Order: sequence, then structure tokens, then C-alpha cells
Amino acid sequence: MTASLGSFEFESGGEISDLEVAYETYGEYTGNNAILVCHALTGSHRVQGTGDGQGTGWWDEMVGPGKPIDTRKQFVICANVPGSCYGTTGPQSANPETGDAYGSDFPTVTVGDWTRAQRRLLDHLGIDRVRAVIGGSVGGMNALEWAKRYPNRVEKVVPIATSARLDPQLLALSAVSRRAIVSDPVWQGGDYYPDHPDIGLALARQLGHVTYLSKDSMADKFGRRLADCPPREFGASGDSPDSVPEFAPDDDSYRDVESYLDYQAQKFVQRFDANSYLYLTHAMENYDLSAGYDSDSDALAEFDGEVLVLSISGDWHFTVEQATHLTNALRDAGVEVTHRVIDSDHGHDAFLTEPESVGPPIRRFLDPETGRFAPVHASLFAH
Amino acid sequence: MTASLGSFEFESGGEISDLEVAYETYGEYTGNNAILVCHALTGSHRVQGTGDGQGTGWWDEMVGPGKPIDTRKQFVICANVPGSCYGTTGPQSANPETGDAYGSDFPTVTVGDWTRAQRRLLDHLGIDRVRAVIGGSVGGMNALEWAKRYPNRVEKVVPIATSARLDPQLLALSAVSRRAIVSDPVWQGGDYYPDHPDIGLALARQLGHVTYLSKDSMADKFGRRLADCPPREFGASGDSPDSVPEFAPDDDSYRDVESYLDYQAQKFVQRFDANSYLYLTHAMENYDLSAGYDSDSDALAEFDGEVLVLSISGDWHFTVEQATHLTNALRDAGVEVTHRVIDSDHGHDAFLTEPESVGPPIRRFLDPETGRFAPVHASLFAH
Repeated sequence: MTASLGSFEFESGGEISDLEVAYETYGEYTGNNAILVCHALTGSHRVQGTGDGQGTGWWDEMVGPGKPIDTRKQFVICANVPGSCYGTTGPQSANPETGDAYGSDFPTVTVGDWTRAQRRLLDHLGIDRVRAVIGGSVGGMNALEWAKRYPNRVEKVVPIATSARLDPQLLALSAVSRRAIVSDPVWQGGDYYPDHPDIGLALARQLGHVTYLSKDSMADKFGRRLADCPPREFGASGDSPDSVPEFAPDDDSYRDVESYLDYQAQKFVQRFDANSYLYLTHAMENYDLSAGYDSDSDALAEFDGEVLVLSISGDWHFTVEQATHLTNALRDAGVEVTHRVIDSDHGHDAFLTEPESVGPPIRRFLDPETGRFAPVHASLFAH
Repeated sequence: MTASLGSFEFESGGEISDLEVAYETYGEYTGNNAILVCHALTGSHRVQGTGDGQGTGWWDEMVGPGKPIDTRKQFVICANVPGSCYGTTGPQSANPETGDAYGSDFPTVTVGDWTRAQRRLLDHLGIDRVRAVIGGSVGGMNALEWAKRYPNRVEKVVPIATSARLDPQLLALSAVSRRAIVSDPVWQGGDYYPDHPDIGLALARQLGHVTYLSKDSMADKFGRRLADCPPREFGASGDSPDSVPEFAPDDDSYRDVESYLDYQAQKFVQRFDANSYLYLTHAMENYDLSAGYDSDSDALAEFDGEVLVLSISGDWHFTVEQATHLTNALRDAGVEVTHRVIDSDHGHDAFLTEPESVGPPIRRFLDPETGRFAPVHASLFAH
């Protein structure tokens, strides 16, 4: 579904005349059972379901009837964020003033803008207050921003595999990713449509994937095995796939891990817009929970709901240490908070790939009575 | 100095008609005091000294009169490896058959080739046996290869911040770095001379620098501070510097950490050849101490000298865990081995930047009597 929310002024000062927001809802609204789910960097509003053109929802094992976020009881909403490319207005959308894609004319977006747009959508849907806001990775920053910005409109918050701000190591990797895109000659300052800087975006995505896995999980998944296929081509956006030249004085050294990254890159450039990647990573880099306040704790002082912080032991994108810092800030702010560390070597990706670990604590947190008696969740998920 | 070593057949089967090897020596040879120092990925034979055209030697604080590798007693040799670009034959050298740069015609090189070339150089210099081989990072792999390949020609080995093989996470990052170079349209399959793919090489170098530092050291050095300068331009190889377009809908978000990476990249593309970077990273990726044997331990079975393994607590490029594995393999092979973990948050870079930590154990290992009474080394090094 898409809601036209009218003109929207971004925190950066830029404005667009009509913000369209693509969203999905699951379950039935009963007046006090709304749960807002915030997607991660390259996610969409398509949380749940399988089989239509958009493929499987990104949290299908977590959201649905009888699942940890149980749509027999909860009314789940997820909206694609401004700046993205899944139906909500972003740099590849047509600028009504020119008829062409916004490209570089699209205003800078912030996590605050995502939050404000979600609030506008909830107003549009007649939802004044939500039972919970839940999100992982930069979606967790989005969830935290709800507690900071609209403390009276949310009861519970579940930030997963996230932190109050990106650490300098990840800032650096994010900056290199942006460089890879803007260094692609096709990028053209952001005004490349209908062409697309596949090569730069592919590099950015490959780098991202290394941060989503842990050292241990990469060792388990790939080891140093050679690939059993020739070097993959990166798919191009049009009909004629481009091939990236391979440095292969000896072709025999193409490894499984490289093949995996190439495969991920190939899939990604088909589905994601390079400008959106720039805008959204930039929003993530610039997010700082304490912005406008003296500390993280001060930023959360108005919130009097409950928070469940989930972190993942093998995650180096957003570390357990950062989650502990966040938990302490919440506690200092007088918030009722629980920090649960999920023991997983899968790294950052575990918030998507281990519903059997992430699900039960969320189920209990959302619905303590039912959660207590719920059967152990048998995951059907296969990575 | 440069030695012409005649025709050289690489392990890959390729051959060049004349291998030139650039090298430096420090101290005076007395017949049994030779120490071979192996440089890291982008290092040169210029270990020591300051002030000439080549700038400061890369291990100036470690090698010299009275320094931990004391040239009043030791005769130190360092040779630029085949495939590099500091005077030893590599892809940017002129192919005598055509008069043009080898480019993509240069044979694949291996760490074994570096070791074989060093042996040829020592033969040329009339040095049959060395007191020690010392190297950090991929130079440590080079040092290990000496113990494996020429066990009777080396007494002591000091592998620093290295391992028996690269782990899959670093294989992945190395592969992404190679992709960045070959994706640069200037690269042209490796036959780009006299042009140079600065943009791709700059990206590769930036990624490398993230792996040389630790999360903690990046937090200490840069935090999330904004830069106090405008976005840097990447230097180009010619007279007219190219500028990389900046993604800057808000210029104000250029951060210190990004400025640091840009500065490093800018310096690097002026001094290093992109093909050399591809060849040498490829050699590092493919190095496996156990190659040709059943295990690391079997590969080292013939060596009956002593080994000092140094690892760095904050190093995620080559971890303490990998150094422990290496130490166990050496012990299983019956080698007299000590593993010393240097406690440093500086990450991989510490082997270059903390002579005050790395120096004393090496001094003692090379010369137990003197080392015991040597004064504490007061480092003049400023990072």
C-alpha cells in the first residue's frame, strides 16, 4: 500500500511536495495493539509473506500468526523509509517539478526524518500510540529515535543489534563504501538514471556483507575453499549484463568466499538504487542518539516505557559493548530496561537469520503472559 | 643497490629473463651475523635511515647502531620482493622482449618466489646461512617460508603479527580490494601504463588501513569528530590531480576518520603501483604454510632452529589466536618456540609503530647475553 502524505520538510531543510510512503500492515487493529517494525538499511516494508513478486518478507519467521510477533494479536506496520527505493519517495522517484528522477536534488535524509515520516503515516492511519517499536541494525536506531522524539506515543521499544551511534571503525567502512559508489564513472554526481553504477554499488555491498558476518562464521561457512564455479559476473541493471574483469593470472584461486560476495553483489544491484544506498548509509553514519542533548541518557529522559535491548555476541558491526552502553544510558534515564545477549557466531546477520534465538525474548517482552506458556519456537528457517 | 640475478622461473611456471633485486644492507658482514628482514605488503628494502629521496626507512627505530636489531653487531639485509615496485622486477618493469612494461604479462608471484629470490640474492652475496629471518605481516609469512623451505640455512625466525595463512574474513576483504582496482576503468586488464588506476588503488588502500587499526585505536585516534578541512582530493599519478567526487549533500559531515583514509590513499597512489598491489595481495591470499604437507607442523619438521612468535593483542588482521595456532604447530614440530603477545590497542600497525614493545623481545632473542643488560629502549618514534 502507499500513502500520500503531502509535503514533507526534511531536517536538512530540503522539502518535497508530496511524500509517498509504501507500507504494509499485518493483523487487525483493535485500538491498542499496533506494533511498528523498522527495517534495516536495505530492507523494505515487506516484512512478512512469501511468493509474490517482491519475494519473501525479510522477517517472515518472526512476524505472522503464532510467530513471535503474533499477528493474531498484534497489528504490525512497516513502512519503507524516505530515501529508500521500494515505493517510498527517494532519489530515484520522479520529481514532480521536472518529471525526472530527483537524483542529487533529493534532500539529505536522517533517521529523524524516517521517524517523523512514520509518525505522519500513523496519524494518517488513525493510530495515536503504538504498543511497541521494534527494529534491528539502523532500524534499531530508528526505534530508539521513537523513544527520544515521541516518548508518549510508544509503550515498548526493542532495539536489536544496534547502538546509540556508529563507531569510528564502521564509520570508516561506511565512508569507503560511499567512495566506491561515487568513484564509479557511471554515478555522475548522482544523476545517472536510467543508467546505474552497478560496479560501485556491488563493491559497497560486498564490504557491507563482510561486516554482517563474523570472523568465525566466515571460517565456518567458507573456510579457504576454492569455488566450484568460474568467477561470477555482476549483473547490470539493463538487459546486457556487464562483466567485471577478474584479476586472474591463475583462475584457480577464485574462492568460495569471493563467489559468495559476488553472488550477493549481483543480486543486490538488481534490487537497490545506488543513490538510496548513499543516502541511507549517510543517515546511519550521522545518527547520534544524544544529538540535541547532553547525553544518551538525557535524550531518553522523557520516555517512561520499557525497553528490551538485544545484542549478538559475534556482532562487530554493532557490538555487545555498545549495547551495554545503551542499556546503561536507558537505566540512568530511569527506563525499565533488560539487555539480552544472544550467543551467536553468526555476527550481525543473526538478527535476521536466527529467529529461534531472537524470537522468544521478543515474544515474552510483547506479551508476558502468553510468552511464558508459548511452545518453544521450532524454526523452519534455512539460511 | 640492485643485483641482476639472471633468469628466474616462478612457481606458477612463468619466467623472466632477468630478475633484478633491489636491496639494502646495514652493518658489516663478519661471516655469521647476517639477518634477513622481510618487508610487509607495500614495504620496500629501505628499512633504515632518514632523509634521502625514499624517505624514512620503514623500521628505522628497530634497525641501526644500538637499536634492537643492532647493526654494530648484525649485518642486516632487506630485499624488495619480486612483483613489487621499488626496484625489484615487477609488473611495471620493462619487459626486455617488448620494451614496454610487463603489465598483465608478469607471472603470478608467490611468497615462495620471494623466498627463492632472497636465497638467490644471498648466494650472490656469498652468504650461506643467516642468523635470523625477521618479518611482520606477510613478511612474517615470508620468514616462516624460510624455516619451511631452507631449514638448514637459517638459525632463528621471528614471525611478527602474522599467521600460517590468511583467515576467510581477510581473504574476503582482500578480494574486495582487488575488485576495487580491477573495477577502475583505467586498469584495462593491467595494461594501463603510463596511466594509473588511482581511484581503485585508493579504495583498496583505504580498506587496508581499516584492517591495520583496531576498533579501539580508531575510537581513540578519530572518534566521530568532524574534519577541520574540506574533503581531500586523491592525488593522481601525473601532474593534474584528479578529484574524486564527494557525496556531500551536506559537506559538513566529512569526518576525521574519512580525512585520514583519504590522506593515506592520496600518499599511497603516488608511491605504489596498482598491479603490484594486485600481485602481492594475491600472493598473501594464496600463502598456506602447510601447502605440500599434511599440516603446518609437518611443513616445519626439518627446521631445528629457534622461533620467537610475536603477536599483538588488538590485531584483527592476524590474530593472537592464529599466532597461538602457529606456535603450537612449531612446538609439535619439535621447534624451540616462544610466543610473546604484545599488549597493544593499536592493532596490526603496532608491529611498525610500537618499537618500544616489539624491540626488546627481539633484541633479547637475537643476542641473549647483551639483551639482558641492554637499557630500556627509549623510543623516539612519534606516530
